[in-house]
Amino acid sequence: MQNYTSLTQVHIAYFQSFLEPSQLIIEDKELLQKYGKDETEDLLYTPEIVLFPTTTQQVSTILAYCYDQHIAVTPRGAGTGLSGGALPVCSGVVVAMAKMNKILEIDTNNLQVIVEPGVITQVLQDAVIEKGLFYPPDPASKGSCFIGGNIAHGSGGPRALKYGVTKDYVLNLEVVLANGSIIHTGARTLKNSTGYNLTQLMVGSEGTLGIVTKIYLKLIPYPTQRVLLLASFDSLYKACEAVSSFFIAGIVPSAVEFMERNAVDWVVKYIPEITVSLPESAVAFLLIEVDGNELDTLYKQAEQINTILEQYECIDVLLADTEAQKEQLWKLRRTIGEAVKANSVYKEEDSVVMRASLPQLITGVKSIGDKYKFESVCYGHAGDGNLHINIIKGNLTQQQWNEEIPQAIREIFELCKQLGGTISGEHGIGWVQKEYMDIIFPAHHLQLLSAVKNAFDPTNILNPNKIVPAAFSINS
Amino acid sequence: MQNYTSLTQVHIAYFQSFLEPSQLIIEDKELLQKYGKDETEDLLYTPEIVLFPTTTQQVSTILAYCYDQHIAVTPRGAGTGLSGGALPVCSGVVVAMAKMNKILEIDTNNLQVIVEPGVITQVLQDAVIEKGLFYPPDPASKGSCFIGGNIAHGSGGPRALKYGVTKDYVLNLEVVLANGSIIHTGARTLKNSTGYNLTQLMVGSEGTLGIVTKIYLKLIPYPTQRVLLLASFDSLYKACEAVSSFFIAGIVPSAVEFMERNAVDWVVKYIPEITVSLPESAVAFLLIEVDGNELDTLYKQAEQINTILEQYECIDVLLADTEAQKEQLWKLRRTIGEAVKANSVYKEEDSVVMRASLPQLITGVKSIGDKYKFESVCYGHAGDGNLHINIIKGNLTQQQWNEEIPQAIREIFELCKQLGGTISGEHGIGWVQKEYMDIIFPAHHLQLLSAVKNAFDPTNILNPNKIVPAAFSINS
Repeated sequence: MQNYTSLTQVHIAYFQSFLEPSQLIIEDKELLQKYGKDETEDLLYTPEIVLFPTTTQQVSTILAYCYDQHIAVTPRGAGTGLSGGALPVCSGVVVAMAKMNKILEIDTNNLQVIVEPGVITQVLQDAVIEKGLFYPPDPASKGSCFIGGNIAHGSGGPRALKYGVTKDYVLNLEVVLANGSIIHTGARTLKNSTGYNLTQLMVGSEGTLGIVTKIYLKLIPYPTQRVLLLASFDSLYKACEAVSSFFIAGIVPSAVEFMERNAVDWVVKYIPEITVSLPESAVAFLLIEVDGNELDTLYKQAEQINTILEQYECIDVLLADTEAQKEQLWKLRRTIGEAVKANSVYKEEDSVVMRASLPQLITGVKSIGDKYKFESVCYGHAGDGNLHINIIKGNLTQQQWNEEIPQAIREIFELCKQLGGTISGEHGIGWVQKEYMDIIFPAHHLQLLSAVKNAFDPTNILNPNKIVPAAFSINS
Repeated sequence: MQNYTSLTQVHIAYFQSFLEPSQLIIEDKELLQKYGKDETEDLLYTPEIVLFPTTTQQVSTILAYCYDQHIAVTPRGAGTGLSGGALPVCSGVVVAMAKMNKILEIDTNNLQVIVEPGVITQVLQDAVIEKGLFYPPDPASKGSCFIGGNIAHGSGGPRALKYGVTKDYVLNLEVVLANGSIIHTGARTLKNSTGYNLTQLMVGSEGTLGIVTKIYLKLIPYPTQRVLLLASFDSLYKACEAVSSFFIAGIVPSAVEFMERNAVDWVVKYIPEITVSLPESAVAFLLIEVDGNELDTLYKQAEQINTILEQYECIDVLLADTEAQKEQLWKLRRTIGEAVKANSVYKEEDSVVMRASLPQLITGVKSIGDKYKFESVCYGHAGDGNLHINIIKGNLTQQQWNEEIPQAIREIFELCKQLGGTISGEHGIGWVQKEYMDIIFPAHHLQLLSAVKNAFDPTNILNPNKIVPAAFSINS
């Protein structure tokens, strides 16, 4: 790894010269450690200092100084990431965006919202719903994650199959570059063909190309009605096979979520107040939502879906009657990640394939599990072909866990590639997935990614050692 | 400008060694000149040779050789571009994609299509409609433009306000880089968060970063019903003002097109078989389409739109009753560009602003016209705030045309920027608009665009001298 300048009192004094005491964490070891973790496994890389800028100008001043002094900088949202993107693996400065958390403007004339990166995604969603508007992307962590983090990782969520992912709503970004200079990547327009699309290059770049300080999002009118179904299957394969049939019939649901039986059982154990009666023999479930403004149309679609489900040997369909029941079913789905985490040591892999290839993926994962003797809990956004595969440590030895499981993960990702997919749908590559990048991309492609990074950050101070494996990086 | 190698018999013999005679234009001056033009004004830059590869491997061989020999390469689609992107301004080789024109796969299970870049956009659309699927982006030139060109320029069209633009449908691209190496930018998945989004960086890059040889597009189910209205106004301002009100009311039409009176009159003169009876006093029109699967819902929306229109002093609303009438109204709208071209020397500016700022844009354009004494014909995709402004030469002297009009265009673009917009919505920057890029971007941003270009094409052989003005280019 490259060498970076270690912080001295001189550097700290400089940061103190333009930041309030409440904008720095310097000596509190426990707090520093908090900013050395995210939601990825149990990794810890303690930073030397954490800074909380409140303005774009402060971000710019911090970066210009770190650029000049060759100090490593790791931007951080809410720390809910699952690929270690926010881990300060080279120590140095963490720039935490939590205090840049204002909704600056909800433009009801143009259906746009302008926000700072530290706004919690659900806060943003609720604020625009009040005006009759909709910001659809909602990762499972929407109650705590930041919109800035969603942009860094290109987050998705359950409604992407109908409404797209974060990138599809970003019109323009204010970004501070590595050397402290500020750019606006786009415009407040739905169409833009004015130079390279740096907006979309920035989305999903995990803080390696710049720090986003202001976000211009497109909104759509809020669909007022939704109908929710829970379908039970006694075959994993059949459940997955049903998914693409809705689309083939011309129906685009607003969500089609897949859950294995054990995922559901773990949630019910984790949150006992969730009560849902499920057929004994069910091994897999699909949570299917359709939305719109005309309830009649939605019920018609629900009937069509019901008819399709019968063809896939669905053993039970539950129609959520009340708002409370809908909320409970969604809570069931959204809590799986947490419940798995509470239950066991695990690794979560964010696989994605062509929708119609889901049956092959689930079969393949289980057979790789047999080979490497691990249990897995699978769930995710089936409508997108985006399956979260949780590999459970269970009774595996530490040696198996450390040496054999990475090989098993490699086999899973190779299968994803064969099925037209890739190794991350919405969690990003960050720190823990980069060693699998060679499965998807040949060396000259990885070198090109590194050259792009170099164009933005020639001295490699911004979130170094993420995304591109060191062997292919021209900067490390 | 940089110096490139001029072609000799040795170079030509090399190309002849792996291409059929029908894949080269070498000596036919008239034909060479045809490939030295596109639809941008009357510009001509004759290439030294035109090559028509039929395979990705041939494109790769051509580029590897040109890279090695330092020969300028200009990729070309159908030549329908309006910003000079396909003009070989440094001479050298034109790589014309016309013979890579196969639809490789329509995947009705995953709602995807795989095509070569030389497929005509309408041919693609018609092929997928036959399977009940929809590829929405349809630039006015859809009957002749190539999907590869649409990707190069980030093309839009009238349905972008509801369905998005070209970029929103591109999942993956096979691209040959400047040195002849081949990459796949994405995957066949709706979600992808695996490294930098080179797919979206490639879309709109106008052949300066690589040559696209295979295109993976997402499709959606084809909406079977559409209702079309033509609304007449006696005020330009009121017509523009009405546009954002539909969205505020929660209706997202599939098209809201604006046409000035003179645009319509010119079409009627150009194609006399178009018969449409319009109120004498009308000076502006909105063509409004809603689409979906339930005709009842659409008629309800049309009624709502009608009620809204009354508030904006709309003087007449025509509901297109028959398919023939709908086709005629769309033909009227789509033929404006051609009719203007046939009628006068002109310059077309592809302005785009926030939708609700259209009234200020149209007022500003007319007042800049008064100041510089030019007549203008305005029309375009009002629902996106995307207005095509045709500046007519009319009685202006050649001196006024050459010296004063560029200043007038600069004022129009400065106004666009003030109104939250930018200088191209869908035509791209290419050759003729790059000298206006400094209005939108500061020097350090333009240098960053140039650094990105440099990461892909370090010796600057691919479509040189496009997008970034020479003064800010590190390559020229």
